[in-house]
Amino acid sequence: MALRDILIVSAALAAVPGLTLAAAPAADEPIQPVEPAKITNARMVDLGKELFFDPRLSKSGVISCNSCHNLAMGGTDNIKTSVGHRWTKGPINAPTVLNAGLNVAQFWDGRAADLKEQAGGPIANPGEMGSSAELAVEVLQTIPAYVRSFKEVFGSEKITIDAVTRAIAAYEETLATPNSRFDKWLKGDKKALTQTELAGYALFKDAGCVSCHNGPNVGGSSFQKMGAVEPYKTTNPAQGRFDVTRNEDDRMMFKVPSLRNIELTYPYFHDGEAATLTEAVTTMGKVQLGRDFTSEETGKIVSFLKTLTGDQPKVVLPVLPPSTDRTPRPEPF
Amino acid sequence: MALRDILIVSAALAAVPGLTLAAAPAADEPIQPVEPAKITNARMVDLGKELFFDPRLSKSGVISCNSCHNLAMGGTDNIKTSVGHRWTKGPINAPTVLNAGLNVAQFWDGRAADLKEQAGGPIANPGEMGSSAELAVEVLQTIPAYVRSFKEVFGSEKITIDAVTRAIAAYEETLATPNSRFDKWLKGDKKALTQTELAGYALFKDAGCVSCHNGPNVGGSSFQKMGAVEPYKTTNPAQGRFDVTRNEDDRMMFKVPSLRNIELTYPYFHDGEAATLTEAVTTMGKVQLGRDFTSEETGKIVSFLKTLTGDQPKVVLPVLPPSTDRTPRPEPF
Repeated sequence: MALRDILIVSAALAAVPGLTLAAAPAADEPIQPVEPAKITNARMVDLGKELFFDPRLSKSGVISCNSCHNLAMGGTDNIKTSVGHRWTKGPINAPTVLNAGLNVAQFWDGRAADLKEQAGGPIANPGEMGSSAELAVEVLQTIPAYVRSFKEVFGSEKITIDAVTRAIAAYEETLATPNSRFDKWLKGDKKALTQTELAGYALFKDAGCVSCHNGPNVGGSSFQKMGAVEPYKTTNPAQGRFDVTRNEDDRMMFKVPSLRNIELTYPYFHDGEAATLTEAVTTMGKVQLGRDFTSEETGKIVSFLKTLTGDQPKVVLPVLPPSTDRTPRPEPF
Repeated sequence: MALRDILIVSAALAAVPGLTLAAAPAADEPIQPVEPAKITNARMVDLGKELFFDPRLSKSGVISCNSCHNLAMGGTDNIKTSVGHRWTKGPINAPTVLNAGLNVAQFWDGRAADLKEQAGGPIANPGEMGSSAELAVEVLQTIPAYVRSFKEVFGSEKITIDAVTRAIAAYEETLATPNSRFDKWLKGDKKALTQTELAGYALFKDAGCVSCHNGPNVGGSSFQKMGAVEPYKTTNPAQGRFDVTRNEDDRMMFKVPSLRNIELTYPYFHDGEAATLTEAVTTMGKVQLGRDFTSEETGKIVSFLKTLTGDQPKVVLPVLPPSTDRTPRPEPF
């Protein structure tokens, strides 16, 4: 085979999706790169974006999906537990919506199978958006531009909560964050990480963090016991999967959170009690691995974790269609 | 003068700012088109946008400028009075931030001379963002990306509230909404409006609405008595300019609101008590003009008002720089 032919074959192989010649090492790693979102139904995604940003899905008219999953802040609200309807204190830390479609299930306790099932929860939760499926649909049904969009996307002018949550989920599925420095390294760019960051990754693997935080989402693929080695002390009453199954074996079994964009998604843990990455790594070492990381070790792991921040979704704020005279008014007070 | 020379002169005249040959009729009209924002300091505007969207300027960490001046909803929150810190009920309807730089002063009672002076108010208001100038600056000062931006824009790494509010105001100055159908008509596109809309505009002028709602912002240029002809009945205790000057002549003197994008900025009046444009026009006719508009007349005026919706600012959501271990944490509860 002449050199020219080899080059042509190489180029052809490189064009095969998922197969990058330069990325040979990635196959051996327990973490895989996040791929950019593939948009198959752009109109549904656009509609879902409008709904994601529309506070009229809440009873008060001031809380949207984006209030707690703020796309300016890593898809979170950066507080321990969220502020809900009438300033209700949320029971648990709001997980990021970024790359959430990669998770095995939704919510910390996995009570929703997928993003669509998740999306309906907060809308109707009295302590979150405080509305109801019926009211949310009634609001949208009175807004001609929404009716046109639903007709176009779902084939009917009659809006349903099923269509609403499908559209929101379709938008959320697009919120992937590819091209983190770590992913560039995985794909073969050996200069993408510093020696300290590489040492942090090595320790992350050696110490056993990676046994739960693996796969493309660096977590999100299993439920694990918070406090596997040593009980985790918290005043937060959440018991993880146990709250869903009432099975004693599920006590304190929480969905392993993704570590993607972890620098942006503070504070940490289901109770939001770890304010900083240093604190989170120290506690995880202790209660999950029975290990007291030195501050040098913690520093290395933290420096690795910060390489997991990917390209944030470019979000052009939607211009929401106005309410009409028939639209039920928000009731914030 | 040869035809060629005439064309050259015409082209030269057309290039003079504010002078458009095709818009000859506009010179006779009491309303002038809104021009697109001219951005003179792009870095300051970008920084101001980040600050505008950053809820860390609030004590709770969940309220940003955009919470009450939502750029997805005409620069307002579309509720009677805003929800502030710990769900405090706001005293007055949040005015739109769109084209606000054209107003003679800021706030309904004009107590801030300009956007810069306005911007500091809500940050430190216990019932709005609930923070303080000191705390807001302390938060920003601990975030390296902000420190770099302030250094670049203002020449110093020491952040001041003066710089913060200048940047926010610089961003807000860009939030103009040109190209409404009415402005196209003003500029000479005679097909931009329907006969009904034109009839509405004629009535808007004949009935006297235009005596207060004039100029490029269709309002915003003067203070007028709410209830000029007949007392305006409201339970809202605000007294307009009187609250600032304590001068009896100023009782119920409010800044005339802009009617730009009025279809998007419901509900109406300083107390937010008019839910719809129909209601607002009916009430204005009565209490300001001593006139009972027929429903046909009201319909025409409303159809004209809806032609004042311009191009909404294209807002790419900023990706906010993360807090660091030194950053004071929000205290929502």
